[in-house]
Amino acid sequence: MGQRLVVIGGDAAGMSAASAARREQGPGKLEIVAFERGNYTSYSACGIPYFIGKDVARADALIARTPEEFIRNHAIDARTGHEVLGIDLDRRAVRVRNLREESETWEGFDQLMIGTGAVPVRPPLPGIDAEGIFGVQTLDDGLALRAALEREQPRRAVIVGAGYIGLELAEAMCAWGVEVTVVGRGEAPMLPALDADMADLVTGAMRGFGMNVRLGEAVTAFEARKGRVHAVVTEQGRIPTDLVILGLGVLPNTVLAAEAGIPLGPTGAIAVDQRMRTGVDGVWAAGDCTEKYHRISRRHVRIPLGTHANKEGRTAGINIGGGYATFPGIVGTAAMKICSTEVARTGLGELEAREAGFEPVSAVVESTTRAGYYPGARPIRTKLIAERGSGRLLGAQIVGEEGAAKRVDVLSVALWHGTPVEDLLNMDLAYAPPFSPLWDPVLIAARKTWDKVAAGR
Amino acid sequence: MGQRLVVIGGDAAGMSAASAARREQGPGKLEIVAFERGNYTSYSACGIPYFIGKDVARADALIARTPEEFIRNHAIDARTGHEVLGIDLDRRAVRVRNLREESETWEGFDQLMIGTGAVPVRPPLPGIDAEGIFGVQTLDDGLALRAALEREQPRRAVIVGAGYIGLELAEAMCAWGVEVTVVGRGEAPMLPALDADMADLVTGAMRGFGMNVRLGEAVTAFEARKGRVHAVVTEQGRIPTDLVILGLGVLPNTVLAAEAGIPLGPTGAIAVDQRMRTGVDGVWAAGDCTEKYHRISRRHVRIPLGTHANKEGRTAGINIGGGYATFPGIVGTAAMKICSTEVARTGLGELEAREAGFEPVSAVVESTTRAGYYPGARPIRTKLIAERGSGRLLGAQIVGEEGAAKRVDVLSVALWHGTPVEDLLNMDLAYAPPFSPLWDPVLIAARKTWDKVAAGR
Repeated sequence: MGQRLVVIGGDAAGMSAASAARREQGPGKLEIVAFERGNYTSYSACGIPYFIGKDVARADALIARTPEEFIRNHAIDARTGHEVLGIDLDRRAVRVRNLREESETWEGFDQLMIGTGAVPVRPPLPGIDAEGIFGVQTLDDGLALRAALEREQPRRAVIVGAGYIGLELAEAMCAWGVEVTVVGRGEAPMLPALDADMADLVTGAMRGFGMNVRLGEAVTAFEARKGRVHAVVTEQGRIPTDLVILGLGVLPNTVLAAEAGIPLGPTGAIAVDQRMRTGVDGVWAAGDCTEKYHRISRRHVRIPLGTHANKEGRTAGINIGGGYATFPGIVGTAAMKICSTEVARTGLGELEAREAGFEPVSAVVESTTRAGYYPGARPIRTKLIAERGSGRLLGAQIVGEEGAAKRVDVLSVALWHGTPVEDLLNMDLAYAPPFSPLWDPVLIAARKTWDKVAAGR
Repeated sequence: MGQRLVVIGGDAAGMSAASAARREQGPGKLEIVAFERGNYTSYSACGIPYFIGKDVARADALIARTPEEFIRNHAIDARTGHEVLGIDLDRRAVRVRNLREESETWEGFDQLMIGTGAVPVRPPLPGIDAEGIFGVQTLDDGLALRAALEREQPRRAVIVGAGYIGLELAEAMCAWGVEVTVVGRGEAPMLPALDADMADLVTGAMRGFGMNVRLGEAVTAFEARKGRVHAVVTEQGRIPTDLVILGLGVLPNTVLAAEAGIPLGPTGAIAVDQRMRTGVDGVWAAGDCTEKYHRISRRHVRIPLGTHANKEGRTAGINIGGGYATFPGIVGTAAMKICSTEVARTGLGELEAREAGFEPVSAVVESTTRAGYYPGARPIRTKLIAERGSGRLLGAQIVGEEGAAKRVDVLSVALWHGTPVEDLLNMDLAYAPPFSPLWDPVLIAARKTWDKVAAGR
């Protein structure tokens, strides 16, 4: 008999690793067991807001592979309803609780893959445990919220947090005809992912969609009546509501790793190398529970995103299975949509650039997604951030409508290569009137940024 | 008084050069005169098919700047209805005919900018001069065709040529409720821009849109009745029609340059260096009349595209005005749309790669433009071509629906940097369900291509 791989966590990172390891090694050589606390494996967590917002009719559509499919097609023993309680590195075993049968066993491993993901931030505020306050992290959470919406038909909802997930959930609430209030602690939404000048566009768009947006306002408590939330209390006032959704972001779920003595990095997430090895031999980690290497700031960061989790999981799995793969880091690309407004960013924002020791210059240009005369041309604002002197591209931000966000990928690839903005001026980007103005917004932004770099030389 | 710049041609290249030169030098230092044979300056030639197809209501919308605006806002003396008949390099003067007044003058220059563009291919076939046979190159041509469509309400139209312009015009004819037949000489449309496997998708889409597509069929004559075309004759048969549109591509318009002894390059277009200097001191050229340097094949090519013409014109103008700019070449990016099908390509196709001395490997993947479960997800097929051994990306082709074409830019930027497909595997491209599947089609294509490269090592 061959080796045994134990995977903790049935989400993107864990199951990508399991699948990649299986592709490298047949069942006779590698036994794979995955333990998932919840009821589902391998689903699109990023799709949950669209299930809540009724763009996706059934939760099934978000599930890439069920436990049965893992067993049948991949010989991966995926067990839902199983919580890992502890890791014993000396025994090379994990303690597992079967939540349905309420029994516990020790499960030995030769190799261990930690894909424990992230836990949503849940501030210890008075009243936070009232009924009607939802966090949305797992598919089980999403199902619970959607069931509540159908059952209770709330008139008003407050979203606490104005980051990616908060804004996606604000859009989702609009689909239910609910009066939406978004409360954010920062002076603009999506800080620090967006610079304030770009974030202000998002605020304007949200108000245009009929949302109440309250910024620079910290929530201090939740008021309940008969155990059910009926108002959010902030430093500035009181917002009556029927429903609260917490969108305050997530923290890496590192409890098991930390307790076992697996080293964490400076960000508090699990430290891994490019092959996704932790500091302990035969123990791997991937996904939201790990640090990522940022190729522009050259620092380790915490960025919980499914796209990284999948790539890291695949990398870990190939290496676990005896192959060779590396995950070379990230450049900080992200995109989201709120109603008809698309937002994307990559690299470093102006503040992030300064914090990382760069002296940034930037330029912002207004353009359209198609030739101005072509039907369906929509506004797009593009900001580039470059290093003074060298002119090296440091980051980019885009706010616009249909067709805007994915253009950030051009800048992501340029960042990957350390391209100076001067080289972007004449980049051979696709042009036809249905797809772009004659001068692509990225090229115009590069020209304006280059003008500033040149003027400062 | 300062120097005098004479510009031949009022289209993208010439007027971009004039404008850029003016930004570098004020009117007191540089006099600028531009001669344009037709009635319009600085319009979007790429927009003409959309004016013909009624997506754009008025031709005015295609005009970026009128002669009056050039005079008023830029002190550029733009004269339409003026044809340059010859260049005398010894006298440093051009012979100009005022087509309205039927008068001729010599116009001296210190610097000369040649932006004579391209002329449509018009094969000397029997009957080609019959009424009802249209070429579409200039805005005047577009106005004539649209007027004919309104006046004559044809039932049937034949497009001769299955390249970019032929396909765009086929779409335009659909808007008039006309029965469309596209006749192409090659075995697939868009050769050699697309490889045959990708081009076959386009053929299928065209038939799905109700077009008749006849491939591998050469036109031999046009039949006329009372001077009016009523059938297209091919090697295989006879196609009755009310209207014919020639979409056979263009050739560089080099007559004036060649007669004056300005050196042409191996492709037959005007040879220029990276600053857009011709082989004659003080004589510059840009746009469709010039060769371009292809950064992947490392050969000179003829690629008539407005996006290159504008960049080259701007480069020439900066240099003419005393600044410094270079145009570093192209990687062969292009995109087009036919009804709901989007097509894009960059770099070298498989045949082109072989001709350029590379040994290519390739992979094709099917995916969707958004997460499969997200509303509006559309099919996208992505093909990557890489060099065997090194794994260096050589080219890419995309055929899909809404949201497909512009993704080629990611690959264009990667080509620019000589990226190996292995490095593309983990590229940090934007992911959110409305914009992409979790694994972006480009990443999946890179993985499949890399698998083939690795297998061949």
